[in-house]
Amino acid sequence: MNSEIPEIGVGMLGYAFMGRAHSNALRSIPFAIDPPPAIPRLVAVCGRDEAALKAMAARYGYAATYTDWRDMLADERIQLFDNGGPNDTHAEPCIAAAEAGKHVFCEKPLARTAVEAKAMLDAVNKAGVKHGVAFNYRFVPAIRQAKLLIDSGALGRIYHFRAMYLQEWILPHYHTPRLWRMDKSRAGTGAIGDLAAHIVDLGRYLVGEVKSVSGLTRTFIEERPLPDGRGMGKVDVDDAFVATVEFANGAIGSLEGTRLAAGRKNYEVLEVNGEKGSLRFNLERLNELEVYWVDDEPDTTQGFHKVMVTESVHPWLQHWWPPGHIIGWEHTFIHELTHFLDSIVNDKPVAPVGATFEDGYRAALVCDAIVESALRRRQIDIA
Amino acid sequence: MNSEIPEIGVGMLGYAFMGRAHSNALRSIPFAIDPPPAIPRLVAVCGRDEAALKAMAARYGYAATYTDWRDMLADERIQLFDNGGPNDTHAEPCIAAAEAGKHVFCEKPLARTAVEAKAMLDAVNKAGVKHGVAFNYRFVPAIRQAKLLIDSGALGRIYHFRAMYLQEWILPHYHTPRLWRMDKSRAGTGAIGDLAAHIVDLGRYLVGEVKSVSGLTRTFIEERPLPDGRGMGKVDVDDAFVATVEFANGAIGSLEGTRLAAGRKNYEVLEVNGEKGSLRFNLERLNELEVYWVDDEPDTTQGFHKVMVTESVHPWLQHWWPPGHIIGWEHTFIHELTHFLDSIVNDKPVAPVGATFEDGYRAALVCDAIVESALRRRQIDIA
Amino acid sequence: MNSEIPEIGVGMLGYAFMGRAHSNALRSIPFAIDPPPAIPRLVAVCGRDEAALKAMAARYGYAATYTDWRDMLADERIQLFDNGGPNDTHAEPCIAAAEAGKHVFCEKPLARTAVEAKAMLDAVNKAGVKHGVAFNYRFVPAIRQAKLLIDSGALGRIYHFRAMYLQEWILPHYHTPRLWRMDKSRAGTGAIGDLAAHIVDLGRYLVGEVKSVSGLTRTFIEERPLPDGRGMGKVDVDDAFVATVEFANGAIGSLEGTRLAAGRKNYEVLEVNGEKGSLRFNLERLNELEVYWVDDEPDTTQGFHKVMVTESVHPWLQHWWPPGHIIGWEHTFIHELTHFLDSIVNDKPVAPVGATFEDGYRAALVCDAIVESALRRRQIDIA
Amino acid sequence: MNSEIPEIGVGMLGYAFMGRAHSNALRSIPFAIDPPPAIPRLVAVCGRDEAALKAMAARYGYAATYTDWRDMLADERIQLFDNGGPNDTHAEPCIAAAEAGKHVFCEKPLARTAVEAKAMLDAVNKAGVKHGVAFNYRFVPAIRQAKLLIDSGALGRIYHFRAMYLQEWILPHYHTPRLWRMDKSRAGTGAIGDLAAHIVDLGRYLVGEVKSVSGLTRTFIEERPLPDGRGMGKVDVDDAFVATVEFANGAIGSLEGTRLAAGRKNYEVLEVNGEKGSLRFNLERLNELEVYWVDDEPDTTQGFHKVMVTESVHPWLQHWWPPGHIIGWEHTFIHELTHFLDSIVNDKPVAPVGATFEDGYRAALVCDAIVESALRRRQIDIA
Repeated sequence: MNSEIPEIGVGMLGYAFMGRAHSNALRSIPFAIDPPPAIPRLVAVCGRDEAALKAMAARYGYAATYTDWRDMLADERIQLFDNGGPNDTHAEPCIAAAEAGKHVFCEKPLARTAVEAKAMLDAVNKAGVKHGVAFNYRFVPAIRQAKLLIDSGALGRIYHFRAMYLQEWILPHYHTPRLWRMDKSRAGTGAIGDLAAHIVDLGRYLVGEVKSVSGLTRTFIEERPLPDGRGMGKVDVDDAFVATVEFANGAIGSLEGTRLAAGRKNYEVLEVNGEKGSLRFNLERLNELEVYWVDDEPDTTQGFHKVMVTESVHPWLQHWWPPGHIIGWEHTFIHELTHFLDSIVNDKPVAPVGATFEDGYRAALVCDAIVESALRRRQIDIA
Repeated sequence: MNSEIPEIGVGMLGYAFMGRAHSNALRSIPFAIDPPPAIPRLVAVCGRDEAALKAMAARYGYAATYTDWRDMLADERIQLFDNGGPNDTHAEPCIAAAEAGKHVFCEKPLARTAVEAKAMLDAVNKAGVKHGVAFNYRFVPAIRQAKLLIDSGALGRIYHFRAMYLQEWILPHYHTPRLWRMDKSRAGTGAIGDLAAHIVDLGRYLVGEVKSVSGLTRTFIEERPLPDGRGMGKVDVDDAFVATVEFANGAIGSLEGTRLAAGRKNYEVLEVNGEKGSLRFNLERLNELEVYWVDDEPDTTQGFHKVMVTESVHPWLQHWWPPGHIIGWEHTFIHELTHFLDSIVNDKPVAPVGATFEDGYRAALVCDAIVESALRRRQIDIA
Repeated sequence: MNSEIPEIGVGMLGYAFMGRAHSNALRSIPFAIDPPPAIPRLVAVCGRDEAALKAMAARYGYAATYTDWRDMLADERIQLFDNGGPNDTHAEPCIAAAEAGKHVFCEKPLARTAVEAKAMLDAVNKAGVKHGVAFNYRFVPAIRQAKLLIDSGALGRIYHFRAMYLQEWILPHYHTPRLWRMDKSRAGTGAIGDLAAHIVDLGRYLVGEVKSVSGLTRTFIEERPLPDGRGMGKVDVDDAFVATVEFANGAIGSLEGTRLAAGRKNYEVLEVNGEKGSLRFNLERLNELEVYWVDDEPDTTQGFHKVMVTESVHPWLQHWWPPGHIIGWEHTFIHELTHFLDSIVNDKPVAPVGATFEDGYRAALVCDAIVESALRRRQIDIA
Repeated sequence: MNSEIPEIGVGMLGYAFMGRAHSNALRSIPFAIDPPPAIPRLVAVCGRDEAALKAMAARYGYAATYTDWRDMLADERIQLFDNGGPNDTHAEPCIAAAEAGKHVFCEKPLARTAVEAKAMLDAVNKAGVKHGVAFNYRFVPAIRQAKLLIDSGALGRIYHFRAMYLQEWILPHYHTPRLWRMDKSRAGTGAIGDLAAHIVDLGRYLVGEVKSVSGLTRTFIEERPLPDGRGMGKVDVDDAFVATVEFANGAIGSLEGTRLAAGRKNYEVLEVNGEKGSLRFNLERLNELEVYWVDDEPDTTQGFHKVMVTESVHPWLQHWWPPGHIIGWEHTFIHELTHFLDSIVNDKPVAPVGATFEDGYRAALVCDAIVESALRRRQIDIA
C-alpha cells in the first residue's frame, strides 16, 4: 500500500453480524476510498468461541485472536478498539480501552441504559481518546444530503419529524428463538435499543435535541424457545414501541419500531416537513431521497423529487460509481469508519458528522424516557 | 326513471366543498348504480347566501332553496336531511331533523365535542330514524376490502395500526386566511376534528375500539388574516397532532395529522400489521391496496402485492369499469349514500359497513382524549 | 337547469362498455361542469337487443329507443350522434349521420382500416358538421399538462417517445371467449386498433406526425370458444404487437400493446425524453405525472417529480375537488364531451385539444402501416 | 488467508471505470465470500499512462505494472487475464492471452463486431481455456432469481420481453466531450454495444435465442468537443436505438437504449410476461423484483409482488446481510468473478449461469443485426 498513508492497528470485539459488517468495511477502506486517511491494520479479533474466532481471523485477515478482551486491550499494536459485540459487552471493555488509551468505536446502542452510557462517556472524555458510536445511518449519502439541506435552511422552520423502523423477524411464522436481543440482562431493551436508538439519533441529527417523549411498549409474544433447545425463555424486553416526541425547537414527531411488521424487512422510513419543503427517506431504497420544495417552478410540475443520490455532487459518492450505479447497506460502515480513522489520524472532531459517545448517551436518555413514559403512562421530559 | 324504484326526498344543508360532494353523489346514483336502491329527489338546499344557493340549486337540480334550516325541515317532501355544513351547524339541525322524523346523514366530525355528539346520538336513537356520519373512507373499495380480509382472519392477530393524514394547505407559502376550520367556536378543533376523526374511525373500523391515547398538539402559526380582510384573527385550534393509541384488543398504533406537510396533498396513509400479513393504503392512490402474506408461495417471491382494487371481485366495483380503469375520490360518496339510501328504503342497519352517529360519537371521544392528553401531558383512557 | 344554457339532443349508438361510459359522462356534465357549455338532452339510444335498450334508457334517462340507427338518425330532436358501438358499426352510421347534418362523435378506433376512416373523414368534411373521435386520454389532465409543457418548449427538442399499453384479459387463465374484438370482420385488428390507436394518437398529440413504423404482430392463441357456446372460433386479429416509430421531427420511439401481459390491467405508460427534461405517465395512476428537469436547482435534489395533477392550476381541475382528491378514468369522457359540446354550441374547433376524424384517420394510417410492416418484414413510410 | 484455498494470479488490463470495478471485486472476494473458491492474487495491471497505473497498483495492491499487454501476458504468475479496457483492446489481447494458456475474462461488449467476437471465441475454444464476458447483470440476485423462476416453468409460455436501458450522460446539458465511446473505430457502436449488449444478453438468458430484429438508430448530436480540447470530433456511433425482436420460441419483444433520456441515470428496466405470470426488474432498484402470479390466492389480493431480493433463499444472499440490508451494483462483479474463479479452480462450466465468449458472440450478432436493419430499413434474421 501507499507508504505515506499511516496505519492504525485495530482490535475487534465480536464476530457476528456487526463484527462482520465492521470488518468488511475495514478491509474495504484501503482500496475503496481514494486516498484512505489511514490503512486499518487488523491486529486481532476477540470473542468466546475459538473456532468462530479462527474462521473470522482467516476470513478478514486478523493477525491474532483473543478470548479475553482484557488480553486484547494489552496488545500494544492496537490503537483502535472496535466493539461490535452484544450490548452487555459494551461498557466495561470500552471503558477499559479508553483507560488504556485506545480510541474507541462502539456499536449502537451505546449501552443498555443511559446510566451505563454516561459512565462510558465520562471514561472517554477523561482519557481524551476519540470515540464514536456506530449510528451508521448518518453515513448513508441520502441522510447526509438531507442534513446538509436542513442545515442550509432550505426547508425553513421544521414542523414535523416522523420515523419508523419496522422489521418482521420475530413473527410467529419464523419461530425465532429467544436470542440475546430479547433478554433484558444482555440487551437492556428490545426494539427500543435496537431500532429506536437509530431513529432517535437521526431525529437529533436532523432536527435537534429532544425535549420530551411519550411512549407505549408491547411484548406481544412473551415466551420463546431458548436457542440451545433447553425449554422456553421469557422475553423481558419490548417487541415494539410507539412514541410521540417534542423537539427543543418546537417541532413534533412520532417514533415507531417493531420486529413484528409482516413484510417489512429493514424498513426504516423517515420524513421531515418544514416550512419550505419536505424530505423522505427509506433505508430499503437507501440510494434515493424524496424531496419537495414549495416554491418549485413551474407550479404545474411541483411534486416530490425522487432523487437518485448517486451523483458526484452527493456526499461520499466521489468514491464510488457513475450515476445510477447504486451502493449498498455495507457502504455506510465504510464511510463511517473512514471518517473515524480520519478523526484519529488528523485529530479532527468526530461530531457533528459522526456520532460520539455523547450522542450515544443522549440517544440512551431518550430511549430510557420512552420506557419510563410507557410505565408511568405520561409524557417524560428529557433531563 | 324506473318506476319501481322508490324516491327519497333530500334536503341538503351546505353548498361548499361537502355540499357539492354529497350533491354530486346524489345526482350520480340513479345512473351510476344499477339498480339504485332509491332515487334521491333533490327537494331543497339550505344556506345563508342566497346567490350561492341559487347557483347550487341550478347546478344540482334542487327544486327549492331555504335560508333557514328550520323552514327546510318543515318541508314534508324531505325524508332525508343531509348535513354538509360546517361543524357548528351539525348538532342543532341534525337533532331537529331527527325530532321531525327525518333520516339524518351528517358530515364528519359529527360534532365539535363528544358531549355535543352524544346529544345528537341520543336524538336519533330516540327518534328511531336512520343516521349516518360521512366517514366516507369506509367506502373506498380498498378499505372495504381491507376490512373483509381482517374480519376473515387472514391477517391473524393484529399487532399494529399506523395512520397519518397529511395535508399542506396552511403552509406560509399559501397565505391561507383564518377560515372557519381554524376557529374553535365553529370547528371545535383543527386537524383533530378534520383529520384525526377520519383515521380514528378507520382504526376503529379495521382494528376495534380504542382503549387509550396519548397525544401532542401544535398550533405553529397562531395568527392569520381574517377572510374578510379586516385584520388578523387568532388560530385557536391545532394545526397538527401526533398520538399513540392502544386498542382494546391489545394492538398499538400511532396517529398523526397535519396541514403543514409540504408536498402532501391529501395523504392519508395507513398500515395494519398482523400475525399473518400486512396491509397498506394510501388515499392519493385509492385504487390500490398493498398486501403482504407471510405464507405466500413460493418463498422466493414474497413481497407486498400492489393490488389494483378494480376487479369485479372487489367491493362496489361491479358498478364501475373494467379492471385498471380507476375511480376517484368522489365515488366514495356514491357508495356511501347508496348504502344509506338502501338502509332507509329496505330498513337495513347502517353499521357496520357504514358509520352511524354511534361511530361519530365514539370517534369524538377519542378526539377529545387526544386534546385532553396533550393538555395534561399523560395517557388518557377512553371512557 | 339553468335556462340560459343551450340544450343539445343526443342520439347514442351502443349500450355496452363505451355506450355506458359516454352516457355516464353526458349525464354528469350538467352538474359536474360549472357552467356546462350545453346541457345534453338524451333523446334516444339505439341497439339490437330491446331488453338491453330498455334497461339502458331507464338507467341513463334516454327518452326513446331505436333498434335501427337509420330510424334514430331520422329523429329531428337529435343534433349530436354519439357512436359507442363496435368498430364495424362506425363508418356507415357516422357517414349517414353527417349526411343528415348531425354532429358526430365516434369511439376509437375510428374505423377498421384507414380507407374506411378516410370515407368517414370525407363525409364529415363535406357535411360541415363537428366531428370527434374518442381518444379520451387527451383529456386526462396529466396528458393535457404534458402537452402544454412540450408545446411551451420546456422539454426542448424531443428525442424519444416510448409507449406501451398492456392488458391481460385474454390470458388462458381467464378463458376469454372469442368476442367481437377478436374477429377481423368486426374489429379490423386486435390490439392494434384497440391499444395502438390510443398510443399512436398520444404520440401524434405530444410529439408530432409519424414518418415510418416497423412492427411485429402475434396471435398467440389462435382459437377460442365462441361466446354463444357453439364451438370454437378462429382469432384472426393480433393479440399483441411491438413497433418502432420515427417521427417527422426526428424523434424515435417504441410502441407496444398486448392483452397478454399478466398483472397489467389497463397499463398505458408513456415516456417522453427531451433535451431539457422528461415526462412519464401511467394510466393506472392517471392523477400523477412524473417530470424531470435537467436544470432543477439545487443540483443535489434533481430527480423525477411525482406531480399530483390535482391542483387548480392543472387542466380541468377547476371543476373538481381540492388537491389530492383524485378523479377517475370516467372523468376523461366528461372533459372530452364537454369540449365537444363547447365546440358545437360555440362553433370552436375540436382540434388540437380534442381529436377529430382527421386524427382518427391519421392514427389509422399508422395502425395499417404496423400491420403491413409485420407482413412485409420491413419499415413502412406513412403516406 | 486460508491456506487450503488456491490462489489465482490475475493480470488486469485497464484502470478506468471497469478496471476499478473488477479490481474492487477481486479485492473483496477473499473476505466477502465465505469460503472463496480461490484467492485472486493481483499480479499486475496494464495500461498506457504510467502515473495512472502506479496509482491503480497502489490502490488495489497490484504487485506490478505493465505498459504493454504483451509483456504482461508473458508474466508466468498470471493465470487469469482480466480485460477491462476499451472495446478496441478486447480482441487482440484476449486472443493472445488464450494462446498463452491464460483463462480470459473480458468486459462487454466482447468486441466491436460479431466478426471480431467470432475470432475471439475461436481462440478460446482452440486454447481450451475458461472464458467469460462481463455481462454482470446475470449476477444481480434478482435477475438470477428471475431466471430460476422462468426455468422452473412458473411463468409458463413466455409471450413478451421488453427491455430498455436508459442513461442521460450525453445530454447537451452535460457538455460531454467526444469520448472513445462515441468513436466507431474504438467502440464499434454507441448505445448498441454499450447498452443493447446488456439487454440482448438478458433477453437470451431469460427467454432464449433471438430469431430476428428490426431497429432504428439515431445520432442526435453529431459533433462534440474532443477530450483534449483540440477542436470538435465527429460522433460516428449511435446515441440511441430502438428495436423489435422475435425470439426463437415465438415470444416478441422490444429493446431500447439511449444516453439521452433526461433523469434516467442507469435505468435498465425489463419485463417478462408469461402465460402464468410476469416479472419486472429495474437496475436502479436492483435489490427488488416485481412478480405477478395469475393464480395467486385469494383473488382479491392479486397484484405485483414487490420482492426484496435480500433473503437467504435468494441467489448469493447467503454471503451478505440480513433481509432488507441491500447490496450495491458492485456486488454483481463479486458474484461474477467468484463464479469465474470457481469455474477455473474446480473446472466447472461458466455457462449457463455466467456468460461465455459464445454468449458475447451471440449478443454481437444481434447487435450487428440491429445496425444492419436500421441501415436497410427491414427486419434481419440472426444467422
